Amino acid sequence: MSKQWTEEQLSLYLSSIQAPSEELAKAAQQHSDQLTKPPGSLGKLEHTASQLAAITGELWPDLSKRTVIIMAGDHGVCDEGISAFPQSVTPQMVHNFLQGGAAVNVLARAAQADVVCVDIGVAAELAHEQLVSRKVMYGTRNMAQGAAMTREQAIEGIAVGIELVEKLHASGSRMFATGEMGIGNTTPSAAIVAVMTGISAEQAAGRGTGISDHMLMHKISVIEQAIRVNEPDRNDPLDVLSKVGGIEIAGLVGVILGAAKLRCPVVLDGYISTAAALIAAALAGASKGYMIASHQSQEQGHVFALSALDLSPCIQLDLRVGEGTGAVLSFHFIDAALKLMQEMATFSSAGIDGRNDQ
Amino acid sequence: MSKQWTEEQLSLYLSSIQAPSEELAKAAQQHSDQLTKPPGSLGKLEHTASQLAAITGELWPDLSKRTVIIMAGDHGVCDEGISAFPQSVTPQMVHNFLQGGAAVNVLARAAQADVVCVDIGVAAELAHEQLVSRKVMYGTRNMAQGAAMTREQAIEGIAVGIELVEKLHASGSRMFATGEMGIGNTTPSAAIVAVMTGISAEQAAGRGTGISDHMLMHKISVIEQAIRVNEPDRNDPLDVLSKVGGIEIAGLVGVILGAAKLRCPVVLDGYISTAAALIAAALAGASKGYMIASHQSQEQGHVFALSALDLSPCIQLDLRVGEGTGAVLSFHFIDAALKLMQEMATFSSAGIDGRNDQ
Repeated sequence: MSKQWTEEQLSLYLSSIQAPSEELAKAAQQHSDQLTKPPGSLGKLEHTASQLAAITGELWPDLSKRTVIIMAGDHGVCDEGISAFPQSVTPQMVHNFLQGGAAVNVLARAAQADVVCVDIGVAAELAHEQLVSRKVMYGTRNMAQGAAMTREQAIEGIAVGIELVEKLHASGSRMFATGEMGIGNTTPSAAIVAVMTGISAEQAAGRGTGISDHMLMHKISVIEQAIRVNEPDRNDPLDVLSKVGGIEIAGLVGVILGAAKLRCPVVLDGYISTAAALIAAALAGASKGYMIASHQSQEQGHVFALSALDLSPCIQLDLRVGEGTGAVLSFHFIDAALKLMQEMATFSSAGIDGRNDQ
Repeated sequence: MSKQWTEEQLSLYLSSIQAPSEELAKAAQQHSDQLTKPPGSLGKLEHTASQLAAITGELWPDLSKRTVIIMAGDHGVCDEGISAFPQSVTPQMVHNFLQGGAAVNVLARAAQADVVCVDIGVAAELAHEQLVSRKVMYGTRNMAQGAAMTREQAIEGIAVGIELVEKLHASGSRMFATGEMGIGNTTPSAAIVAVMTGISAEQAAGRGTGISDHMLMHKISVIEQAIRVNEPDRNDPLDVLSKVGGIEIAGLVGVILGAAKLRCPVVLDGYISTAAALIAAALAGASKGYMIASHQSQEQGHVFALSALDLSPCIQLDLRVGEGTGAVLSFHFIDAALKLMQEMATFSSAGIDGRNDQ
């Protein structure tokens, strides 16, 4: 447990985040250009390898110890009836994560990733020896009626994420994936994306876990109301996060910032994670260089959010399950990118001719 | 070595291919709907799990032994100057595959897949104890001047693919990926896609391993010329394959048909593989149910070809390296789909509430 961070401490932390090294990115690309394939033909795998070098400062970093962090929190806005599932599912799914039975557990085992689940704001008492208990609040307040949380709570949520990444890094983890659980959380995510990118609530809102046309119309009006009531200031990301965000989203902002500070890649899952990434990028522009997109979510606003971050997804599986599933799946591609750099033959070592025009 | 297949023998073989079992697909989907996630929220992973059940006749088939088959052949149309690389690269890359230094080797090791390389038509003498030598010809003839091969050679190429899959299946392999090597082979692939889907040569042609604007214009005119000179009959897939195809493409048609006949999933790589799949689907419509798309290639005609097969890719990595790389990468997703079905908790086992509206 840590003492409360002040806004000044957070500002100091943000200003200490350095952009990845362009020099290392170039060195990695030079190596890649010597491998037995047409230049650039491995597409995003080459780009990822260069980015990983730039991030870590090593040409071929060892990212074998990696963790998906699941931030769990509840949302007062569920009172408005915006989700297909009852709020009771949040603590039940936390239990499922701790038992190893959720989708993200299965995928994390396949990708040799650790799963860490954090109660940062579930609206129920939870206790389990594997659970990281850092509860900031028992669910946010209903953002359709006022701010979801105070500015201090948002900062505390960010600090939970930062401190957890620091602790996991100290235990050897070198890559992170963002995961989340919180019934209703595509609603604050859509609100954040609408405010931060300037798209409408209608463009930002999707069907979440699977709501009807009628509920979708209602969800859009709730998001519009939350923005109207709270008047979040787009130029003040903490204002946006606290007024129309979620406490688990604050935690993910901290995970992203903590990874950037420690020069570790952080793989974004879907819509909720990308909403957190928009806040993190607005707080510390240098953190953008540490983000890796994973999948294109079924939430229609996701494409706008990724585009605002200059990110492009590599997985199109029509996932809408959250938890960190898409991020963990993309660990296979990150491993592939590194293995290609290390194990492929070069044109000269394999005795292969160059291009006709060279 | 086998004796030459007649067209009648091939026809008999084609009519013996059965569509996958819809009953098993439904049973798999019923299981999937009980797992702790919103129904359908695992998107294509759920669909793939159902398809694998339908294909194999088992709810959770063991696909741990899998093979990427690289068909290698040369193309007379290279005389027209349509590729960025000289034809000498084909045998050099075959050697690279056999040494384990190519991109597909690295990715196959990561996905626990065997690599089998077949000389089905390289325009050079090749010998290596790991090489499967089934040479039908020393490269195709220049399709801009006449048919790339005879109808008998096309059938022989298909038979090579079928017989190889039969042999690998007998050794335990239960899933196949299509790979290829052949300098110039996006040109015949584009010609096949143009003829079989009705798009123009301009829409079907892409930059292959990386040609200039000027060469791309030339490549388009060569494809147009090949179609004009040969007048391939869209309603006769063997006519199309022999006149404007490639011998390695014929081999891949055989791999796809052989997998379908033996009720094994066959994962398509990029543009060349999908051109082969169009021929296979036209020869035996039931084979479509055994195909799994992997990545969206950088070749612009690929999207039309996949769409004509009702397939949708799951990987967007901007790959244009061929070899089977995209197909092998998607083995990770196929493994994930099966593991999710087997390892996830159900709503009842985990004690999780259902939807608000149920």
